[in-house]
Amino acid sequence: MMGGSLKLYYDLMSQPSRALYVFLSKNGIPFQRCPVALRKFEQKSPEYIANVNRFGKVPCVVNNDFRLAESVAIVRYICREYAVPAHWYPKNNSLQQARIDEYLSYQHLNIRADVSLYFFCTWLNPLMGKEVDREQADRLRQRLDKGLNFFEQVLLENGAKPFLTGDQLTYADLSAACEIEQAKIAGYNPCTERPHLSTWMAAVREQTNPFYDEAHKYVYRLAPEHIPTPTVPCDDDD
Amino acid sequence: MMGGSLKLYYDLMSQPSRALYVFLSKNGIPFQRCPVALRKFEQKSPEYIANVNRFGKVPCVVNNDFRLAESVAIVRYICREYAVPAHWYPKNNSLQQARIDEYLSYQHLNIRADVSLYFFCTWLNPLMGKEVDREQADRLRQRLDKGLNFFEQVLLENGAKPFLTGDQLTYADLSAACEIEQAKIAGYNPCTERPHLSTWMAAVREQTNPFYDEAHKYVYRLAPEHIPTPTVPCDDDD
Repeated sequence: MMGGSLKLYYDLMSQPSRALYVFLSKNGIPFQRCPVALRKFEQKSPEYIANVNRFGKVPCVVNNDFRLAESVAIVRYICREYAVPAHWYPKNNSLQQARIDEYLSYQHLNIRADVSLYFFCTWLNPLMGKEVDREQADRLRQRLDKGLNFFEQVLLENGAKPFLTGDQLTYADLSAACEIEQAKIAGYNPCTERPHLSTWMAAVREQTNPFYDEAHKYVYRLAPEHIPTPTVPCDDDD
Repeated sequence: MMGGSLKLYYDLMSQPSRALYVFLSKNGIPFQRCPVALRKFEQKSPEYIANVNRFGKVPCVVNNDFRLAESVAIVRYICREYAVPAHWYPKNNSLQQARIDEYLSYQHLNIRADVSLYFFCTWLNPLMGKEVDREQADRLRQRLDKGLNFFEQVLLENGAKPFLTGDQLTYADLSAACEIEQAKIAGYNPCTERPHLSTWMAAVREQTNPFYDEAHKYVYRLAPEHIPTPTVPCDDDD
């Protein structure tokens, strides 16, 4: 099933879209770029729902006639169907695979929810004309603080583990880093006073560049000035 | 890795705990029952967090020295390590596996969140002495209505598909049914005016009994009278 028939529907403003975009690019898997503009609600159009993703979300892949949503399901599928270096999701190491699965299941209602809720409340809602509920924003900020502290202290064991599941980069790390980057748009620097998280994020970026920076170009541009980000040209083609 | 060394930490009040309990029981996988009383916050005790699950949640399995949390990760692990009928999660059918993975990833922020948020707001919070916010409860009820309608109309294709991913019962169905049962405790009957959802839930129950009813004994007992549930003896040992 190798070849150029794989289409990726994505928006670089979506965390799992970015993770998948980096994953496919870094692994040299040919794919057709099919940008979907969330800001125009293109993912909710009847055509998109009928022909691409019934969930009305990004990312999604279409491979010949097979449509698949949900980044975590897509990555497992890609690892079965294409040649992907084993460290991403080691098919022959049941315990390591279980540990990666554990994080990828855990993150939905934790890091992903922690970051997304704060982002929606403080950045996206005001953009849509909705007033920020300060009390809610404070509560969500505390939740995000707590989630990231747990991430650094327990999951990364305060730096004792270079990556989430051990010594090697896996899809769990890439997924997590792309989620956490999103907080920067909302003016929250996840790295402040978190040296081990910072080291880990830098390592994920370094091991997946230049694709990581390419996928994060809008995040970097939208992050306010007090949060340092790399300079990456935006060609506005996505 | 067969044998009786597998320990399951669970509470039958937890949806994914029930799904895993039914899955292990139905497949004849020997396991030690290790109940964790959520009502006593046992999952947050320092001993539990240090020795069982660092996330402070149920379910969790411990197999010799290997500890694994998150029901979806656990099921995949069990399917690799034990003899489990292929229909649950067919290892040799990449597309079917992808479809099951898709649902199991999707559900976290959809059906699981839809049911749990309503349950917390209208049943658990008042039990903990917190007043019900009627406006929030109405909003969450609408969200749950919408989620279950989508489940029936799109995922089950209005009865055209007997199970979520086709003709056969998979872990996606069991996981979904155990989530949806939880709404009954909060006085919400998911089956009302949803004939196809009702047929599907009955099929999941029938194919997994007597373990399904055993796992749902507290749900059945706690559901208010206007919601019909089977009578199952509760021996209060969990």
